[in-house]
Amino acid sequence: MAKRNPRKSKNRSEIRRGGARTAPGNPWLFGLHAVTAALLNENRRVERLVVTSAGHERLPEAALETIRAEFLGRKDIDALLPPGAVHQGAAALCAPLPVPALEDVLLEASDQTVMVVLDQVTDPQNVGAIMRSAAAFGASALVMQDRHAPPITGALAKAASGAVDNLPLVRVTNLARALDDLKAAQFWCIGLDGESETALQDFKADGRIALVMGAEDTGLRRLTAESCDALARLPTSDAFGTLNVSAAAAAALYEWARRRNP
Amino acid sequence: MAKRNPRKSKNRSEIRRGGARTAPGNPWLFGLHAVTAALLNENRRVERLVVTSAGHERLPEAALETIRAEFLGRKDIDALLPPGAVHQGAAALCAPLPVPALEDVLLEASDQTVMVVLDQVTDPQNVGAIMRSAAAFGASALVMQDRHAPPITGALAKAASGAVDNLPLVRVTNLARALDDLKAAQFWCIGLDGESETALQDFKADGRIALVMGAEDTGLRRLTAESCDALARLPTSDAFGTLNVSAAAAAALYEWARRRNP
Repeated sequence: MAKRNPRKSKNRSEIRRGGARTAPGNPWLFGLHAVTAALLNENRRVERLVVTSAGHERLPEAALETIRAEFLGRKDIDALLPPGAVHQGAAALCAPLPVPALEDVLLEASDQTVMVVLDQVTDPQNVGAIMRSAAAFGASALVMQDRHAPPITGALAKAASGAVDNLPLVRVTNLARALDDLKAAQFWCIGLDGESETALQDFKADGRIALVMGAEDTGLRRLTAESCDALARLPTSDAFGTLNVSAAAAAALYEWARRRNP
Repeated sequence: MAKRNPRKSKNRSEIRRGGARTAPGNPWLFGLHAVTAALLNENRRVERLVVTSAGHERLPEAALETIRAEFLGRKDIDALLPPGAVHQGAAALCAPLPVPALEDVLLEASDQTVMVVLDQVTDPQNVGAIMRSAAAFGASALVMQDRHAPPITGALAKAASGAVDNLPLVRVTNLARALDDLKAAQFWCIGLDGESETALQDFKADGRIALVMGAEDTGLRRLTAESCDALARLPTSDAFGTLNVSAAAAAALYEWARRRNP
């Protein structure tokens, strides 16, 4: 792994904390699971909690003990959020989470861990759904590029159903370099690619695994695919095309969860 | 299997064709994949195809040969569709598909087939996503209740990305009775249940499989669970709760696709 200047790394991290981690004008998380997870996350600074009476009743006590809730009408909460936000009577004004550095996450990784790497998956619903599946199947982090990846909006956090406060999300400038760092840390980097001749279930890899997923339309970029140790496909039907990227992620994450839970 | 009156069954089916299969006022499918699949489906009557120039260029020729396309501006297409519909420059005014009867689908099922049964999964995005994964992993049908299940709207069909025109969708009045019919047709009915002690990957069943999934919040209803041959859980982490139902479906469908593609 390349040597890094810790001072430079710290500065970059600070810029990130202040910056583009929530959509401009909408730093609110909403929905019962997302709000609960934010309240229970010790690393998350929550500035306001607004609830309807019904929402308040459905939030766990431990979460409510962390901050004084402001009671509002449903429509008043609507007005704080983007149009159409399904808030279930709870929203939290949150500071963005600190963004961990890849090297720190790699240092803490166990010998049998799985990470997910996203190559320009831009749809916030998909990224949120993948975070949720990754957390549920016990993955240890999500890695994505700083550019061509969505910020952590309320809608993404709602789809993640609390996973943004449970799964470290690493942002990197250069994905190929991040894959090199993963390989140097003994990760098997497996790119999901429908054109591969190897089926995922036949792939004999143990130890640390990084599952690398591309954008829905275009798949993995050439340089990303070349940076993987191997490519593998899911056993989909020839008759009907393609899986949604979040469904593909769920299947691939399941494959490793099943191997570790025999 | 109970004997049925074919005449009665036909009448019910005709009522369905005219009835609530699309949301009132929005019988439009939209999005490139959904529109292409509708145009290429011989059983689907498409009454109008509206496209932008860009949408027209991205539709396959074989699909465009089936009907004369009307060119409209993007905003004119917007105006035909529900607010926020991501139509990608293509929308098709479609008659609802004929709804197959469960008994017919069972008669055509192969010895190694998988079907998905949904117990009151009401979110159209989830149902669409499950149809897409089911079609991609080679399942032969989706079964759901007539009530407590969404109609085939444009939004559902968009999430299904063409699968509503590729996967038979069976609607039944009584889900427990449908499970009895499936069991009588030699299907192993496996209910997904996070509380089960059996992990799905350890479940030794071969032949015909029905994967039965409950609503996200409440899971399988008691009667549905009791009507299954067995319950099984996915190998999720204890630390972070639950999978989205469409992610759970993708993982369970993958399990059977992998067993059949060794």
